[in-house]
Order: sequence, then C-alpha cells, then structure tokens
Amino acid sequence: MREYAKDYRSIAAEKQRQRQSKIPKDWLIDAQKYGEATNLLQVPVTCGILDGVEREITSNYDATALSEKIRQGVWSVEQVTVAFCKRAAIAHQLTNCLTEIFFDEAIERARQLDLEQREDPNCKALRPLYGLPISLKDSFQVVGQDTSTGLACFVKKPADQNSALAALLLDLGAILYCKTNLPQTIMTGDSDNNVFGRTLNPHNTALTAGGSTGGEGALIALRGSLLGVGTDIAGSIRIPSLCNGIYGVRGSVGVVPHSGVRDLAVPGTDGVRSAAGPMATSLRDCRLFMKAVMESETWRYDSAVVSVPWRNLQVKEKLRVGLVEDNGIHTPSPPIRRGLNKATQLLQRSNDIEIVPLKLPSIKEIYQDLFQYMAPLGTEHYSELFNRTGEPAIPSVDTIGLMSVEGTTLRGFFEMNARREEAAKKYLQLFCDNRIDAIMMPVAAHTAVPWDRWANATYTGLWNYLDYPAVVIPVDKVGETDLADDVVHAKYGPEDANLYRLYTGPELYRDAPIAVQVIGYRQMDEALINTAIFADSIINGKE
Amino acid sequence: MREYAKDYRSIAAEKQRQRQSKIPKDWLIDAQKYGEATNLLQVPVTCGILDGVEREITSNYDATALSEKIRQGVWSVEQVTVAFCKRAAIAHQLTNCLTEIFFDEAIERARQLDLEQREDPNCKALRPLYGLPISLKDSFQVVGQDTSTGLACFVKKPADQNSALAALLLDLGAILYCKTNLPQTIMTGDSDNNVFGRTLNPHNTALTAGGSTGGEGALIALRGSLLGVGTDIAGSIRIPSLCNGIYGVRGSVGVVPHSGVRDLAVPGTDGVRSAAGPMATSLRDCRLFMKAVMESETWRYDSAVVSVPWRNLQVKEKLRVGLVEDNGIHTPSPPIRRGLNKATQLLQRSNDIEIVPLKLPSIKEIYQDLFQYMAPLGTEHYSELFNRTGEPAIPSVDTIGLMSVEGTTLRGFFEMNARREEAAKKYLQLFCDNRIDAIMMPVAAHTAVPWDRWANATYTGLWNYLDYPAVVIPVDKVGETDLADDVVHAKYGPEDANLYRLYTGPELYRDAPIAVQVIGYRQMDEALINTAIFADSIINGKE
Repeated sequence: MREYAKDYRSIAAEKQRQRQSKIPKDWLIDAQKYGEATNLLQVPVTCGILDGVEREITSNYDATALSEKIRQGVWSVEQVTVAFCKRAAIAHQLTNCLTEIFFDEAIERARQLDLEQREDPNCKALRPLYGLPISLKDSFQVVGQDTSTGLACFVKKPADQNSALAALLLDLGAILYCKTNLPQTIMTGDSDNNVFGRTLNPHNTALTAGGSTGGEGALIALRGSLLGVGTDIAGSIRIPSLCNGIYGVRGSVGVVPHSGVRDLAVPGTDGVRSAAGPMATSLRDCRLFMKAVMESETWRYDSAVVSVPWRNLQVKEKLRVGLVEDNGIHTPSPPIRRGLNKATQLLQRSNDIEIVPLKLPSIKEIYQDLFQYMAPLGTEHYSELFNRTGEPAIPSVDTIGLMSVEGTTLRGFFEMNARREEAAKKYLQLFCDNRIDAIMMPVAAHTAVPWDRWANATYTGLWNYLDYPAVVIPVDKVGETDLADDVVHAKYGPEDANLYRLYTGPELYRDAPIAVQVIGYRQMDEALINTAIFADSIINGKE
Repeated sequence: MREYAKDYRSIAAEKQRQRQSKIPKDWLIDAQKYGEATNLLQVPVTCGILDGVEREITSNYDATALSEKIRQGVWSVEQVTVAFCKRAAIAHQLTNCLTEIFFDEAIERARQLDLEQREDPNCKALRPLYGLPISLKDSFQVVGQDTSTGLACFVKKPADQNSALAALLLDLGAILYCKTNLPQTIMTGDSDNNVFGRTLNPHNTALTAGGSTGGEGALIALRGSLLGVGTDIAGSIRIPSLCNGIYGVRGSVGVVPHSGVRDLAVPGTDGVRSAAGPMATSLRDCRLFMKAVMESETWRYDSAVVSVPWRNLQVKEKLRVGLVEDNGIHTPSPPIRRGLNKATQLLQRSNDIEIVPLKLPSIKEIYQDLFQYMAPLGTEHYSELFNRTGEPAIPSVDTIGLMSVEGTTLRGFFEMNARREEAAKKYLQLFCDNRIDAIMMPVAAHTAVPWDRWANATYTGLWNYLDYPAVVIPVDKVGETDLADDVVHAKYGPEDANLYRLYTGPELYRDAPIAVQVIGYRQMDEALINTAIFADSIINGKE
C-alpha cells in the first residue's frame, strides 16, 4: 500500500476540529435533539440561541429590506453581522453547510464599517452592498482562508489573494463571514467530500442538498445567509437552488467576475466556462447583487470578465414566454409536472404574459458534448489530486460517471466547438422566430433526490453549453397529493425509466421544494432578471 | 501531374473578366496613362470620370458630414451611391482593390430608399447609417456574391445568406456596393491572391497596400469608400490602415458581429478570435459606425456576439497615456520613430494629457503563442484548399512562414490558454498600476514595405492575443528628411537587423504614411474611441 505524506483521514479530522473551534461555545446547539427530525427549517428560531432582535434581523427581511434598515441606522452593521454569524453557526450544526468560518474577522470588519459611518455618515451611500453579510462557495478565495474545495490535498494552504469577486464585494461594502460546502471535484449533485463530509438538505434530510453549491443552498434555506454566491458550469447554482427552495441566478459567463475561483480543471481548459451568480431568499436580492456587480468596474478586478453593464432597462409590459414541458430525454416526475403546470396556469391568467409551447432540439447530442467539455483531457487530473492524500472518490462522483470520461484530441475539441456554434445559431433562431422573451421549464426532471442519486444535468447543462443566463424560481413543495405514478409514463427508454422510478411518493420526498427555471438571451442578464421578477410576482405574489 | 476539376488560372481569368464587366464603359479610365506614377491619390479627381457634384460628394466630406447632407436632402441617396460606385471603380482600376462589384444592386437599393423617403420623410431618422455606401472586406458574405477570399476553389459559389454584420448594416440603412481584396489565406501583409491579383498602395505603388484588409485600405485612401469594414486577428485592420494613411478600429472580439465571415481556419478553432471593425477617413466616422452597431440589437443577428452596448460615456477631460517606444523585439525604423515622437510631443504640449513611458513585457513569448494560435492544427487545411485547383501559395505566405506552422495537441493548446490567462493578468495590472487610459505605440516597426516583405505582426498581434481594442491614427508621411540610418541601431539581433535594413530612405518610401496605434482596456471600445478622438484632435487638429 502506498504511503502518503499525510493520510486524508487525519487531514480531515484536524480540519474539522479547527472548523468546530470557530463556533463560540454559546452558539452550540444540542444537535442530538434534532436527530430524528427531517425538516429543520424552524430550528434556528426555536433552538434558543438567537435573541429577539437576532431573530427579527435574520427572519423577517430579505437583503434588500435589510440593507434599507442598515442605511436607516435601525441596526448597526455589527448587530446584523453577529446575528447572521450566529444563525449560520446554527445552520451549520444542523446541515454541515460551512467549510471555512471567519466570524471574528467579519465582526471586526463590521465594527470598522460602523466606526467609519459615525465619522462620515455619507460613506455608506456609495456602497450598494454596505453592511450586508454575504456567504461564498468554498471555491472562492478569501485571504487567510483555505480554498480546499473539500480536497484533502489543498487543506492548510490559506489564500494570499482574494478572488476577484471577493475583492469587489468587499469594495462594495459587503461583509464576508463564511464559505460553504461543495462536492469533491465540484461536479456532482451531492455536496459531499472527504474533508468536510456531506451537507444535509434542511427541508428533508433524507434528500440531497444538491450541488455543487449545496452548502449555500442549505445555509440560505435556513436563513443563515440572505445572499450567497455560487458557480455553475452545468447546473451548480440552479440544482441546489431547486433542492433548497431558494432563488438562484446563473449569470452569463464573465458577467460576474470569476477569476481566482479554484477550478479543478486542467489550467487553460476552455470551451464551456463556469459562471458565478447569486443565490438568495428573494429574486430582488439577486437583482441587488447583479446590479451592484454590473454597475461596478468589474474589468479592473478581473482580466477575464465580459463587460456587460447594468443599463436600468425599462421593464417590458408584455411578455412572451416559451414553455418547455420536458427536454425530450428525461421525463419530469409528477411533482415537477405539477409545479410547472401551476406556474404556467398562474402566468396564463395574467393578461401581460403569453405562453408559447416549445420543443428544445438536440438535447441528447448537446449533453453528450457538454459532458466531454467538462473533462476534455479526461479525468486523470482528479485522480492525481485524490492520490496525493489517498482519498477515494465520493459516491456521487461514481453516480455521474465522471471518472470514466475519456479525453479527446485538439481536432475533436474543435469539432465540438463547431457543433456548438451550429447549436447556438439554432437556439438563437428558436428564440427569435418565436419572439419569446424567455423560456420557462423544469430545473431537473425531479426534485431533490435521496443521497447520491443525482445522475445528470440535462435540464440545466444546455444553458451552460449555450451560455444563456437562467434564474430559478421556487414554486411549491412536495405534499400529500403528489403521488408516484407508474413508470410507463417515462417516455424516453430505460435510463429515463430508472430516473423516473426514483420518485416514490410524498412519504420519502415530503417538503422537497419544486421550482422552475427561466432562461433569457445570452448576456441579457438584466432583461432576464426583469422578466423573472415579473413571473415571480405572479407565481409567488412577491415584489 | 495531378489533374484538377478546373485549373485555378482559368477560374481566375473568368472571374476577372466577370468583375471587369461590372464596370460601366463610361467609367473606364486609361490605366496606361498612370502606369509611371507611384502616387495615385489625385487621379480620381483628375481623370475626368467624375462630374463636379460627384467630385464634391466624394472629396469634401467624411461619412458623418455626408450623412448630414443626405438627411438635409442636399443629395439623394442615389446621387451619393452613384458617385461612390464611380469613384470605387476608378480606385479599382488604379489599385485592383475590389473583388466583388455590385453597383447595380446598390443603385437600385438607393433608389428604393429615396422612394421610401419621399413617402415617409421620417424613415431615415431611425436609421443611423441611412444612405451611406459602406464597403466590405471580401470575407463578409453578401447574398448573391461570391465569398472567395481570393481562393480559386471558392469562386462561383454565391452566398445565399448575408453575414450577420451585412444584414445589420442593411437594417441600419447602409448601402453595400462592393467587396475588397485580401491575401490568399487572409493571413499576410500583402493583399495578393491567385484569383484577383495584388492590390497596390495608392500612396506609393512600390509598397504593399498591407493586409489582410488591404483592398479596403487602398479603396478608402482613394475615397472610393468613406467607411469600410475589415477584420483583424493579428493586425489585419491596423496594418492596411497604417499602409494607406487612414483610420481603423480593431474592436474587441464580438462587439461588432463577426458570424458568417468566411474564416479559413478549421471550423471550431478557438483561442484568438478575429474581430471586425471600421476603416475610414476620419475617426468620428469610426465612432459613427461603432455607435450605430453597439446601439443596435447585435445579439439578434449573431449568436456569438459580446453584448457590450454603447453607453454615451462622458468624455474624460484628463488623460494618462502610456507611451511604448518599441516592443523589445523589433526596432522601429527612422520614420516610425519620428512619427511617434511627433505625436508624443504634440500630446505633451496639451495640459490635458499626461504621458507615462512604459515597457511591454513578454512580447516574444506572446508572439510565438499567437502564431501557434493562428494554426493550432497546423496548416494542412490551407494546402487542401490550394490543391483543389492547383494554386500555389502566394509569396507573402512564404514570407511569414505560415505553411511551416506545426499543429499542437489539446494539452499544448490548453497550456497556451493558461499562459495567455497569466499574460492577461499581467497586462491588466500594467494598465491599472499605471492608471493609464490608453497606450500609444507604433502599429509596426516600419511603414508599408516593398511587396512581399511584410514579415510579422509583433506590434499589433499582442492586442489580439489579449483582446484589447486598438485604433490607428495617421500622423505623417515619409518625406525628404527621413533618411535611413545604420543597421547598428537595430537593437534586438539578426532578425531585427534584417527588418531594419528594409528602410532604405525616402527615395523608395516616398509618401508612405506613418501612424500610431492607441490601445484601450478590453471591451472598453467606446472609452478608447473617445480617448483616440481626443488624441487625434491634438495630433491632426480634427474634431
């Protein structure tokens, strides 16, 4: 047996001990008390750790409303920060959603902002995210913190530079206070790894919290954060947004700075690029984030941004929305069909929205190429990272078949690019010919599924392949009436049938969130967010 | 000896006859009369083909001023179109600058626009390029016209679709009337090919018209067009702009729609992408073009655009300009040094511009990689195209060594990408640390050189590699005082010395234009154009 400089188990044990030490004793909950519960959403307010003001701050506002309160001086930045640190600590103890905890640094910065504010009352006016605690997926670098991405070989190597976005968010006035869990390889639908373990879904702990930005999903669902940032190369913002019943925006590539995010791909891998975006409890918070970022000089922070500015576009008063009921390879499960129907019917009742049924072409071929784009040189680089500390692949890496992807050649790579250029033309034409403002469709063929069963990203990956922005809007939750139906309803062959069988009815899936995604034109993120806010206002009666 | 379906010579002969037939008899000049002259700039107004109004229309305005006259109804669109068709015909007979001639279609469209205008006087208000004749590099597809790019194998295959930009320009009100010459392979500094032959430089016919957009360069220098469109992957807009003493803008990749431009690269080749941009007799015409394009919905025309809108940015009143005197591998020739000094001194006299001397890092390594990016799979695809009709490579293809580029692997390609990402960070830092708005530097180490001697693009290619926008501003012309100096002044070794020796003094180089290029931040095309217009107003006393 090979000898490792250090075995992953001891690295993980030490890392977990250190992480635990970052939670003040007074904030510890009796986790055993909640061991039997599957739905943990109420625990933060019932566990007795938060005082009345902290419950108020963390429970009753979205980031937009909270920002207003901070500007009005209702609460100091320190009060707000402490409240969210506490609630994040509770969320973590319930779901294992955090990787790096730096509450002390955050509270110290909050105090400084409060001091500055006393000396110059105008200083906050200029900073659109002033005083707002923002959580980040572990892959973003924050000075002094590890960026292990759950790989043992990267533990205890604190960053000496911020990711471009972390630097920008600080300049915009935000408070960074924690980073969140993700899958080994950052490629699966289960936020599980050998260093930090698995993040649980607070709606139903028997189900996955989703991935790869699953830590954010669980943290935000429990309101341990109101605004977090994920990345999405095949669905990694949208899948956990669906699983955890929150809003999420996959921005177009480069619109939100992405440089300095740890990416496990071979350096220089191009083709389909990961994109960053916000996850939140309201869609207007996603807008707050996107507007703040797109109004700033992102190009000074990151040499790889796409400089699409926020334009304060007029909101359209009449919308045409393409409706895609299924993607032609994976049949949506009964709750997903019900959720999409519900959203469609609500939109149809509006005089301002016209629904246009659509079919998406070439999904199977596109998804095959997307999977190859994920690892054009094969997956040896992952094995090499695992082998440094002897860690095994997590189960969900096997579920998606990642380690069996073989590399292609330069010619094969360009052939994929050429096919993608053709697909891009076809899809633009589909949008233009139908004069649609957006497409509405499922985020996946199913809700959150039991652990380690999330097998593909055919509903989400298409939009990464084409680089169209996409927004997840929660619609409902699985309830008593969502019965399983017969597998004969699976229309697309044996693999589809296997996936379809996963849904066994409301007993196992109780409270699993149901969502839709809304997709807009490439780089038209602002227009899409406007459209999605309009749709959300009808579906969920918000803003 | 191999038998070809058809030999390139017969294809070229037939194509040239057809082209010649597109010029009305009344517009033919006695070309022999000008066989001895090297400077042809005055011939269009002295040859007797243009009447007084046509001379006025084509000689005394830039496109911006002419557009105003058209809107005022001083001249009909037909009058303007006929005048430019005539003058383009003259320019072509002098320099062989045109490939496809479609004057009839253009004049027919002009009549239609005039008719529409009579019926609805407001129709022109909405179209920013209303009634303006615009010429296109041959590689842009125009319905009904060949897109041979000077390759015999592509002759007699008329396009059934417009390039995205051609479609957009028509929708913006422009008149398309001709396409222009370029080098075989679209990769050299000499616009020469086996189908159409060589374009001459109207300033000095002993020198190259530059490439690859050399036909536009010659045509615009002779005012056979006021506004043309080129493409630039290593300098192909800027080199002919320098050689022909005109303005040219290499936009950032994707800002000006580029889809449907014939690209001889293997389909799907990515890495360094070609960018389109305007060439004109004034910089404000380049702005007119860029503003019109960037204000339109380019993303509806082209699935590959980068949606950076025109923002009507405030023009900065104080500028910091980085001055790069040479690029560290090729020593500028005496006229280039004089031109840059002249521009620098003029700018320094302004209270509003601060000059910051700069050195550019890593040019040699960057240029090596750029050259590999031009043909990552090697150059067999060119040979294959040549072989279809038995045509040989043109001399300038040998000069640049294109056919000896060997392919790389997918891993090698990603390694190049990774080096480029690092270079991009370094260069952004150079710009930001020095707080510069732009860099000013030579366009090449030399002016236009004798035929088939243009050997590299080390001054221009850098900005394609990094995707920074760049503007060419003419500064002066070679005159009596521009003596050659000793080769000891060549600082960078034998290859530099060979290049340096090319400049033999004002006898051979008489009237060769001298220019500078001004480079701005990636995708900040609008801000760069503002900066360049300001610099131009000081250097050339224009707007």
